[in-house]
Amino acid sequence: MTATHAVFHTIALVVRQNTDGIAEPVRSLVDFLQQGGYQVVFEEQTAAHLDLRFDDVQVMDAAAIGASCDAAIVMGGDGTMLGIARQLAPFDVPLIGINQGRLGFMTDIPLEGMLDVLARILSGSYKAERRTLLEGSVLRNDVSIHVGMAVNDVVVSRGTGAGMAELRVEVDGQFMYNQRSDGLIISTATGSTAYALSAGGPLLHPSLGGIVLVPIAPHALSNRPIVLPESSEIVVEIMRGRDVSVNFDMQTFASLQTQDRIVIRRSPHTISFLHPDGWSYYHTLREKLHWNEYPSGEGKLN
Amino acid sequence: MTATHAVFHTIALVVRQNTDGIAEPVRSLVDFLQQGGYQVVFEEQTAAHLDLRFDDVQVMDAAAIGASCDAAIVMGGDGTMLGIARQLAPFDVPLIGINQGRLGFMTDIPLEGMLDVLARILSGSYKAERRTLLEGSVLRNDVSIHVGMAVNDVVVSRGTGAGMAELRVEVDGQFMYNQRSDGLIISTATGSTAYALSAGGPLLHPSLGGIVLVPIAPHALSNRPIVLPESSEIVVEIMRGRDVSVNFDMQTFASLQTQDRIVIRRSPHTISFLHPDGWSYYHTLREKLHWNEYPSGEGKLN
Amino acid sequence: MTATHAVFHTIALVVRQNTDGIAEPVRSLVDFLQQGGYQVVFEEQTAAHLDLRFDDVQVMDAAAIGASCDAAIVMGGDGTMLGIARQLAPFDVPLIGINQGRLGFMTDIPLEGMLDVLARILSGSYKAERRTLLEGSVLRNDVSIHVGMAVNDVVVSRGTGAGMAELRVEVDGQFMYNQRSDGLIISTATGSTAYALSAGGPLLHPSLGGIVLVPIAPHALSNRPIVLPESSEIVVEIMRGRDVSVNFDMQTFASLQTQDRIVIRRSPHTISFLHPDGWSYYHTLREKLHWNEYPSGEGKLN
Amino acid sequence: MTATHAVFHTIALVVRQNTDGIAEPVRSLVDFLQQGGYQVVFEEQTAAHLDLRFDDVQVMDAAAIGASCDAAIVMGGDGTMLGIARQLAPFDVPLIGINQGRLGFMTDIPLEGMLDVLARILSGSYKAERRTLLEGSVLRNDVSIHVGMAVNDVVVSRGTGAGMAELRVEVDGQFMYNQRSDGLIISTATGSTAYALSAGGPLLHPSLGGIVLVPIAPHALSNRPIVLPESSEIVVEIMRGRDVSVNFDMQTFASLQTQDRIVIRRSPHTISFLHPDGWSYYHTLREKLHWNEYPSGEGKLN
Repeated sequence: MTATHAVFHTIALVVRQNTDGIAEPVRSLVDFLQQGGYQVVFEEQTAAHLDLRFDDVQVMDAAAIGASCDAAIVMGGDGTMLGIARQLAPFDVPLIGINQGRLGFMTDIPLEGMLDVLARILSGSYKAERRTLLEGSVLRNDVSIHVGMAVNDVVVSRGTGAGMAELRVEVDGQFMYNQRSDGLIISTATGSTAYALSAGGPLLHPSLGGIVLVPIAPHALSNRPIVLPESSEIVVEIMRGRDVSVNFDMQTFASLQTQDRIVIRRSPHTISFLHPDGWSYYHTLREKLHWNEYPSGEGKLN
Repeated sequence: MTATHAVFHTIALVVRQNTDGIAEPVRSLVDFLQQGGYQVVFEEQTAAHLDLRFDDVQVMDAAAIGASCDAAIVMGGDGTMLGIARQLAPFDVPLIGINQGRLGFMTDIPLEGMLDVLARILSGSYKAERRTLLEGSVLRNDVSIHVGMAVNDVVVSRGTGAGMAELRVEVDGQFMYNQRSDGLIISTATGSTAYALSAGGPLLHPSLGGIVLVPIAPHALSNRPIVLPESSEIVVEIMRGRDVSVNFDMQTFASLQTQDRIVIRRSPHTISFLHPDGWSYYHTLREKLHWNEYPSGEGKLN
Repeated sequence: MTATHAVFHTIALVVRQNTDGIAEPVRSLVDFLQQGGYQVVFEEQTAAHLDLRFDDVQVMDAAAIGASCDAAIVMGGDGTMLGIARQLAPFDVPLIGINQGRLGFMTDIPLEGMLDVLARILSGSYKAERRTLLEGSVLRNDVSIHVGMAVNDVVVSRGTGAGMAELRVEVDGQFMYNQRSDGLIISTATGSTAYALSAGGPLLHPSLGGIVLVPIAPHALSNRPIVLPESSEIVVEIMRGRDVSVNFDMQTFASLQTQDRIVIRRSPHTISFLHPDGWSYYHTLREKLHWNEYPSGEGKLN
Repeated sequence: MTATHAVFHTIALVVRQNTDGIAEPVRSLVDFLQQGGYQVVFEEQTAAHLDLRFDDVQVMDAAAIGASCDAAIVMGGDGTMLGIARQLAPFDVPLIGINQGRLGFMTDIPLEGMLDVLARILSGSYKAERRTLLEGSVLRNDVSIHVGMAVNDVVVSRGTGAGMAELRVEVDGQFMYNQRSDGLIISTATGSTAYALSAGGPLLHPSLGGIVLVPIAPHALSNRPIVLPESSEIVVEIMRGRDVSVNFDMQTFASLQTQDRIVIRRSPHTISFLHPDGWSYYHTLREKLHWNEYPSGEGKLN
């Protein structure tokens, strides 16, 4: 997206619920967009929880936004982004993330000064970054009983108060292992900075094109995270375990039984984030992971 | 390499030094190859340390093997394979690994029964697997003072008895971090089962096309392993540290000074391993990492 | 327990349920004990699930065993031992563990050849090892609503399908941290080889006298395991989280609400294991953790 | 040290070298002490590198300080404290640590406002905390060729550019394992926040009385950190490895040969730190490890 870029006419707004002091920034954002000649759309839940009145603002659900908007601006945190990104993925609407107070991995524009940054992005000066999604299907007796999509991760995990689960993992038709653990995280690069990281997984650069399997508290100490090509088909079969379930981005769930199989592969859909020019993935990592706290010359370890 | 395959006429043998009882297997391998009509070549160091006499066996150095052999059979362990693979990489001679006693990640054919397996491979029934290599150049005042190639890893590390090194890492021209640690491992997928694994890195599937950066005992606990696309150019600059050095596969070395920069990228060369049909990467992982020690139904954790 | 030792008259048997082929070994054990002049007692659940008839064998519950037996022989795995150990802890009945097929951390005498080993132990030739237990009390509005005891660990964890829990941890009245994670394991030395190990905790030598706090998939990468003196009083308060619960050795449970506090301290009770003379803690670790798989001289890494 | 406490008459000053802007604070500290009626002593290296003239200030080496001072005030970082603490350990002189700019684990009083804090401490209002040290002896053919003492850790490590070392570890005469790795850290509780932490070790509370063994990049993934009682005698024998060495607090070194044995045990000496009243170990951990960065209610992970 260097030479040519999307031209933006209609822009959706998605705003996190229960956010103190959000009315004012939303109002100034709508004014800014309307003055710039853009048609503004409110995502329906956003419209419902914001108690605001605007002229010329339409309200749409995700599917309608997908059909008619050229971009979506998301105000909130990474959680808000995650929810709408999964819904908009089939429509390839680019996403712009505004954070409130704390830099997010996906919401990288501070509320303070957002109008200047948005002006530049909407005029075509941005860095577009495409992210892979996963889709998963739960098979019971070879019949699909649940399907889901994930921007971050698909997580298979045991119930609280149950002993370890035993999961049989197959990749591209080849047996990988029987793993005994609290569960298994199947994560995209996007998810590699989220739950997978807490469970000991590596960071994956978004342009890598990889899927990482991260066991949660595995019995065998050598059950280490493994990074697979994005083209892999991963099948997880429940061999043993009580109250095992699968969730997608912690937002949709299915309860599982022994012998259920979850088939996970790359989604045909992707999402793209529009970052301000000059955005750097590593800058975000440094900020979020506090990598820059020990600058050169400051002191010695102990 | 499914439909058509290499036709083998001339085959090089590379044998680990100081290996008790290796004379007999080597003799039977040479007999087997000569009876099969193959021209046999001994790599020069192999010829020097083996006290064996054969008719019709030529002795060549790596470059000559590269120019004239259709495959190289390596008898030893992964260390032996590593040494010859790096030398043969510019010539694209496929490699077949025979292990003595213990399965290797790269030497996957047991000495016992090797002749049957080799017969099948040489007749075209094999699975070829291509592996990426890294190359690195050490720049001092912008002049290259050392270059190296690595099948496994490029390792920058502090001297023993010196305090932490401080390394400034840049990827594709973007600043990543200043890291304080014992050192940094830049590893291929092949190397991800070696030193990088011991230092806490993830496993990378060989077909992923990735490079993993694994810090060794980093001061900042959030300096986690990060997997980058294979196309990345990684620059490590020595900011601080005594007796810092860089090594390539632990086989070539250079001493470094403050402000030296090591530029690391994918080598234009690759190597390919010929595995027996039915070979499975995951099977090797299971064996080497003891993943199959807790089969279903055997017992409960504690 | 070097100079003088317990004299054994009455010995309880505890046998794991649903164990194929256990009848014969139990029979020979009872014969052996009765011929040796010992009074044999069956723990009541053991008596119920074993379909065996013996003369002169009494059946007792744990409290009666505690009051009248000089030792308990446990046949099964570490799970069986865990269950009975917690029940017998108030009575200080020493425990002897027989494993079936796989060495346990607590059940260290193989079924094969157990009679010889038992003969030596019962004649006074053993190594007694004392283990600490934890006790915990759940306070809601300062009223205790659940108490439990643990040989291995007290685990506070979030519900499946719920976001991270937030736990406020205090030690000896001092604030330690607010931790966001899947949960927190508070483990004895005995438990340090169980769940805590899977979650990344260190091994604690049983004679250390320590308690280790191991966060499960913590959000902050610097939330590392911390080992505290055995005398510590640990208070975990539920700050946030859905379906949070606490369990003791994965065998008793309580559901928790926000603001519930779990107060954990060393139990006044301990248990003791009687090991065969020559038993070595490190030998068990080597066996269980496969530490002895790379003996000197065998080969080189990769 | 609650009811009665040390009475301070003579106080040594130890100041880090090459510290910009230290003259003024040192001068005000000396004035403060002299006005309070204390006799001030400069440690000899401090006197040499500071270009300051004072009346009534004596200069002493560590042994003389040990013989005649009631406390030592250390201005610098944890590294400065480490050096002097090891020298003063035989004399049991309590230590007070002033940090410049960044909180240290051992230097916990900020330069800003230090006089008020020191006034309170010297008047008896402090919290004394005793720390264990290790001592080690290198035996070659059963003759001791080097002895050392460590506040933080004894580290056995391979040379740069050498393959893994193989170390045979024995504890209290019992064989623990043969470990192949970059090295082994034997750390006190004090050292558990230093190099051992970077290498994956747990935190040990200073009052625990434990020693932790932390392998550096071990070949066997199950070679996890293990915490031993403080009374343990640990013997590390060099089985294999080039350029292996041992260091004590990274400050004294010995080169080792195959078959050398390092015998490590608790030192008969201890050191004590005097902390301001209200000092909290957990507060220091929170600050240094950034534990308090995700307070309740601030946001959600991703």
